[in-house]
Amino acid sequence: MENILEHRLILWDRDEYCQRLSSIRSHMLESSTEAIILADNANLYYITGRVFAGYAYIPAKGEPIYFVRRPVELTGDGVVYIRKPEEITASIGMSAPATIGIEIDVLPYSTVQRLLPLFPDAELKNASAIMRNVRAVKPPMALRKLRESGERQVRVYSRIPGLFQEGMSDYDLQIAIENLCRREGCLGQFRISGDSMELYMGNLLAGRNADAPSPYDFAMGGAGMDPSLPVGANGTLITPGTTVMVDMNGNFNGYMTDMTRVFALGKLDQLALKAHQCSIDIHRSLCDMMHPGIQAKLLWEKADEIVSEAGLKPYYMGHRQHAGFIGHGVGIEINELPVIAPRSRDIIREHNVIALEPKFVIPDTGAVGIENTYIVHSDHVECITPAPEEIIYFDR
Amino acid sequence: MENILEHRLILWDRDEYCQRLSSIRSHMLESSTEAIILADNANLYYITGRVFAGYAYIPAKGEPIYFVRRPVELTGDGVVYIRKPEEITASIGMSAPATIGIEIDVLPYSTVQRLLPLFPDAELKNASAIMRNVRAVKPPMALRKLRESGERQVRVYSRIPGLFQEGMSDYDLQIAIENLCRREGCLGQFRISGDSMELYMGNLLAGRNADAPSPYDFAMGGAGMDPSLPVGANGTLITPGTTVMVDMNGNFNGYMTDMTRVFALGKLDQLALKAHQCSIDIHRSLCDMMHPGIQAKLLWEKADEIVSEAGLKPYYMGHRQHAGFIGHGVGIEINELPVIAPRSRDIIREHNVIALEPKFVIPDTGAVGIENTYIVHSDHVECITPAPEEIIYFDR
Repeated sequence: MENILEHRLILWDRDEYCQRLSSIRSHMLESSTEAIILADNANLYYITGRVFAGYAYIPAKGEPIYFVRRPVELTGDGVVYIRKPEEITASIGMSAPATIGIEIDVLPYSTVQRLLPLFPDAELKNASAIMRNVRAVKPPMALRKLRESGERQVRVYSRIPGLFQEGMSDYDLQIAIENLCRREGCLGQFRISGDSMELYMGNLLAGRNADAPSPYDFAMGGAGMDPSLPVGANGTLITPGTTVMVDMNGNFNGYMTDMTRVFALGKLDQLALKAHQCSIDIHRSLCDMMHPGIQAKLLWEKADEIVSEAGLKPYYMGHRQHAGFIGHGVGIEINELPVIAPRSRDIIREHNVIALEPKFVIPDTGAVGIENTYIVHSDHVECITPAPEEIIYFDR
Repeated sequence: MENILEHRLILWDRDEYCQRLSSIRSHMLESSTEAIILADNANLYYITGRVFAGYAYIPAKGEPIYFVRRPVELTGDGVVYIRKPEEITASIGMSAPATIGIEIDVLPYSTVQRLLPLFPDAELKNASAIMRNVRAVKPPMALRKLRESGERQVRVYSRIPGLFQEGMSDYDLQIAIENLCRREGCLGQFRISGDSMELYMGNLLAGRNADAPSPYDFAMGGAGMDPSLPVGANGTLITPGTTVMVDMNGNFNGYMTDMTRVFALGKLDQLALKAHQCSIDIHRSLCDMMHPGIQAKLLWEKADEIVSEAGLKPYYMGHRQHAGFIGHGVGIEINELPVIAPRSRDIIREHNVIALEPKFVIPDTGAVGIENTYIVHSDHVECITPAPEEIIYFDR
C-alpha cells in the first residue's frame, strides 16, 4: 500500500536495464561518443527507474557509475556518493574519455561549464540529442507503463460527463477533473523538456477562450486565470453552443499518455461538427500510414492535404495563432521524438509512441478534434487511449 | 470574470515598471554590465508582469526592447516580433554592448551558445546572479501580491481540519487539500528555479514517511507515490499518535507565499510536542533579529544554538537525511534569495520576503514545526501567513 524507498538504485529488472543501457550505447557508438554523463531527471529515470540527485556516468565500454548526492542510503553496483561534481574525477581515473556527451540542451550553461573541466581534453558531444533518440523508441517496460497510463486516462475521461453541472465555468470543471485524475492515481507532475513551457495538470478550453493565443509551444492556447500562467481555462462560463476541449495529464506511473476529447452543451454549428469529423478522419488516414520507415513530415503533409480539401485551413491548429506541429512522441516527457511537423527530419520507428492531435479552433464555438496516443508496431498501429471519439454532449 | 489577453505587453503600472527597471539597472551598474538579455519565464514576468516566449533586452542606457515570438498581437513601446534569436542583432544595431548579461544559471548551454554570437566581442556576465539579487528585494506590487497570496493561503489552511475523515491516507488528504487550494484560486504551478527539483502542488507528510529521504533539495522529504516523483505523500494511513505536516502551494497570483502547519490525530509523544514548541521559539527569536543589515548566517547560527540547547539536533531539519538550510526568499519562485544557511553570504535587506521553516522529524511520530513567510521592514518583521501555530488536532 505505502510506497517505500527501495535501497537498490536500479529499479528496472535486469533485462529491461540491459536493454536500456544497450540502446544508449548503440546511439553513443553512432555519434562516436566514448562516455556520457547524465544529470537530467528524465534521463536518470530512463536509465535507473528512479529520480535521484546526481549523475549517471555511462562509458561505451565498462560499467556505469552512479554518482549520488541525494537521497542517502542507495546501494548497488557502481553507486558512489559524492558531495560535488568535482569528486567525479577520482572515480573515473585513468580511463578518461576522448569524447564526453553532456546534456547541453537541458543543463544550464554554468552547470556544463563546471562539468567540462572534469573531462580535460575531451571533445564535447550532445548527450541531449543522443538521449532524445534513445527515448523515442520505447523498451518493453515503457510500453507496459504507457498502456497502463492510457487505461487509467480513459477511465478518467469516461467519468467527465458526470462532473458537469449547469452554471459551471471552465475553471470549475477543470478542478473537478483534476480531482478525478488524482483519485485515479495521476501523479500530477507534467514533465516537459526545457523549462520555458509550463502547465498545471492539463489544459481545458471552453468556447472562445480556445482562440486566445498562448506564449507556450502547445498545440492549443487559452488565456489562463492569470498573466503569470497564460494557458488554459480563464473563467469562461460553459454555455450552449460551445465546446469544452479536455487535454488532461496522463502521467500515472512515470510514463505519460496524451489524450483529448471534446464535450459540448446544446447544439453546435455545422462548421464545428465538420472540423471534428475531419480530425477523426485524419487519425484514420495517418494510422494507415504510420509504419516504421516513413518520414514524419509525410504524415504532416497528408493531414494538411485532408484539411485543405475540406476547406478548414483557417481553423486548423488554431485560428488567431497556429501551432507548427500536429503530433509528438510521448513518454517520460510530453515533448519527445518524433515530431510530426512540416520540416521534421524524424523517421517513424517501431515502438515510437506518438500522440496525434489534429485540432481546430472555430471562433465563438471553441476547439474541436481529438488526440490519441499510439504505439507504432512493425505491421500495425495500436491505440492506447481507446474511447468514443465523437463529441460528447453534457446534456444528452 | 474571464481573464482576457491584454494586448499591451507591460502589465505593471508605470511606477511599478520604472521601479523594477531601475532596480535591474542599478544591479547592472554594480556588476559593470552594459546590457542584459532575459529569456527565463520568472525574469520576464518580473519585468513585464506577464510570461511570453521571447527575450527582454535591457541596456543600462536607452530603452528596453522586447523580442516576442509568442503570443501574437502584443503591443507597446519596444515590442519587436521575431521568429528566431538571430533576428535580435538587427534591432540592437550600432549600440552593441561591450558586456552582455545572460541567464547562464538557468538557460541551457546550447541556448547560451546560440545567443553569444549575437553580441560579438562582448564579455559574458551572469544575468542570473543579477536577477537573483534584484528579485530578493520586493517592489510595492510584489508585496501587495504576496500579502494577498498569504491571506488566501491562510484561508485554505483554516479549512483543512474540516476535510479530515477517519481512515484517510496521506494521499487522500493531500488531494482533498489540493482541491481546496484550487477552489480558493491557487494557480497550481509551483515555480522552482532550475529544473532538478519537482513538486506537484505541495508536500504533505504523514507519520514515518516524514523520515523518507528525498533526492530533491527541499527542507523535508517523503517517498512519494512513485519512484518517478520521490517526494511527499506515499499512501501512509493517518493513524493516532502521528503527525501530518502540510506545506502546500501558496501561488495565487504569480507571487507565492510559503506556509506549513502540523495536524495530528490522538495524543503525541513529549518529544514531538517539545520539538514543535522549539520551532515556534526559533521563529520568535529570528523575527527579533531579522532586520536589514544582519548576516543571514547569523540567523541560522541562532536557530542552531536554540536547537542544541534543547537537545533536539538529531531530529532537526530531518533525521535520516538533513536539509542544509532553514529559510529562503520566496516570490515568483520558491527558492529565491536570501538563503538562511550556515555558509550563506547573504545580508538581510529591507523588503526581503523570507520563509522560515525550522522543522524536525521525530521517528515514528512524523514531522513537526511551522513555516511562515515574513516581509522584512526597516524596523520590524511582518508575518503574512498569520494563523494559529500550535499543532491542530483533527479529533478535538
